[in-house]
Amino acid sequence: MTYFRENIQAMQPYVPGEQPQKGGFIKLNTNESPYPPCEEVVEAVRAAADGTLRLYPDPVCTRVRERAGEVLGVQPEMVIVGNGSDDILTILIRSFVGEGDEVVYLNPSYGLYSVLTSIQNGRGHVVEYTDDFRLPDDLCRPDAKLTFICSPNNPTGTLSSADEVAALAEKSSGIVAVDEAYVDFAESSCIELVHRFDNIVILRSMSKSYSLAGLRIGLGIAPAGLIDGMMKVKDSYNVERLGIAGAEAALANVEKMKANAETIKKDRRYLTQQLEELGFDVVPSQANFVFARAPMPADSLYEKLKERKILVRYWNLPRLSDGVRISIGTRRELDALLAAVKEIIRR
Amino acid sequence: MTYFRENIQAMQPYVPGEQPQKGGFIKLNTNESPYPPCEEVVEAVRAAADGTLRLYPDPVCTRVRERAGEVLGVQPEMVIVGNGSDDILTILIRSFVGEGDEVVYLNPSYGLYSVLTSIQNGRGHVVEYTDDFRLPDDLCRPDAKLTFICSPNNPTGTLSSADEVAALAEKSSGIVAVDEAYVDFAESSCIELVHRFDNIVILRSMSKSYSLAGLRIGLGIAPAGLIDGMMKVKDSYNVERLGIAGAEAALANVEKMKANAETIKKDRRYLTQQLEELGFDVVPSQANFVFARAPMPADSLYEKLKERKILVRYWNLPRLSDGVRISIGTRRELDALLAAVKEIIRR
Repeated sequence: MTYFRENIQAMQPYVPGEQPQKGGFIKLNTNESPYPPCEEVVEAVRAAADGTLRLYPDPVCTRVRERAGEVLGVQPEMVIVGNGSDDILTILIRSFVGEGDEVVYLNPSYGLYSVLTSIQNGRGHVVEYTDDFRLPDDLCRPDAKLTFICSPNNPTGTLSSADEVAALAEKSSGIVAVDEAYVDFAESSCIELVHRFDNIVILRSMSKSYSLAGLRIGLGIAPAGLIDGMMKVKDSYNVERLGIAGAEAALANVEKMKANAETIKKDRRYLTQQLEELGFDVVPSQANFVFARAPMPADSLYEKLKERKILVRYWNLPRLSDGVRISIGTRRELDALLAAVKEIIRR
Repeated sequence: MTYFRENIQAMQPYVPGEQPQKGGFIKLNTNESPYPPCEEVVEAVRAAADGTLRLYPDPVCTRVRERAGEVLGVQPEMVIVGNGSDDILTILIRSFVGEGDEVVYLNPSYGLYSVLTSIQNGRGHVVEYTDDFRLPDDLCRPDAKLTFICSPNNPTGTLSSADEVAALAEKSSGIVAVDEAYVDFAESSCIELVHRFDNIVILRSMSKSYSLAGLRIGLGIAPAGLIDGMMKVKDSYNVERLGIAGAEAALANVEKMKANAETIKKDRRYLTQQLEELGFDVVPSQANFVFARAPMPADSLYEKLKERKILVRYWNLPRLSDGVRISIGTRRELDALLAAVKEIIRR
């Protein structure tokens, strides 16, 4: 006997990467920035941490929408702010997908798409990426209410071009959501498509490039008509006061984020090259991580790194079980990782 | 042509109370505490606002669950932490209610229950409170998957006893959720029922009594088996780092919350008495607000107070349109309200 819906009872939950609550780990497993948020953000958050915490936040995050609009070249009415971009993903599912409706997503990709589909009791349809992680020809499904594309893709780091996505949006009778959580580390974005299509939603995260995973700020960018409806679905006060303060300050200091992103891209090249010299097959990445197929069993590599207090991400899943995903940490963290990998491989 | 689900397209959104982003208002409209959170909370939040904002929060809020468990007399495994108690309400709906399933709630009560039911495309069934706002005999519905009871009830301030709720839980084949957002201002709670029934969920909010509306912290308390399943439905990182830090500190200083609650209860008696002297019919309240039926058209009273920069809550809805809900502010705020009311009534 259970009180839960059958789909909830049956489903497996999303398993986030390990978040050890004690220190001492080199954490290269959840794609956090190795750099702190800029001083202006910390100052703004501290200044907002006063007696006004007794008051509710602005339910529609007016100023964040304005600032984000300026940064992204869209009207504020085309922006919705979420409690992390995972909140925006949830809002999308609840807005566009009824029970039994089809949701399309790729493999391998971010595991949350299928979990959210299960929670909604939608009908998930998985389409395989090509061998070089390009969008396949059979991605467009006539009955899809919602199609998720992650670009750069998690966990491969590969990018889908705006032309490819535009071709899909053109053909689709449902919503095409482009999860650009990692796009600040990439060479191009699909953001301009929100001006050309009425069925495109772009997702952005401030968790990675803006170093604000702890504050939970995500953005959805879409034609105003879609944003209006999504606003009905979000929780009234989904973003708290300090997140709003931090997001505003971060969006007023975009150049600091960009400087960090440049460092991370440089170190991504470094890590890729070093891993290749050690015999890894590294997928060319446009994100703040690389997926590296290992010259040894990847589960064992993951375990041995963890013994050395270095966390990377491993999935025992098709197309992923031969590699690990490694976040681009500081150069010192990457060198510690490389030293550990050398030691492990040579045993 | 719309991309939205029919229920989303058709529904009216929840409308939160006005949150003016500019100052100068006496805000007695959204039941915030008039007192700031205690110093320990502000200190803890500021201390947590550092470079570690780059890191994800603890996805399961381990220490908040432990602290809340101590305060509430339950095991940590019986607690789930939400992004406000609205998040817990959403988790309940998504856990237990499929499309077309029945959800039962009372009238008049918190408007979000029906909105969440619409979003889920559930079948809402409204049961009327008795004239003196007691639970009616027809509240138990054989097919209800979820029954919401708000106690103390928003916006009447009236309490349902643990015995009444226990009788309902005993008879119910679905979940009975008791929304105790305002219970710290009341003389009793239903919390002990989580030890006696497998179908009871208690909700608590830190927004009101703990003066933390801006941080968004809600708690769900239930038998561990229910919490386990609800954990699958919540967003992985639904509560951010600073909210966790603030909640921990607040739960370690419960006596400060209780002192504020005592002041508010005293001022509730004062406001009730003063309003009665002015000819209002005030529903006896166990919350940090009163619902007062006015000796003049209530919409006009609301408007005239707003002109004087005093916000109270008015709903043009059956059983509510003859009154306003007034949050218990500071004594000074209440006196300003009373002076304005006198002036308005005498014109």
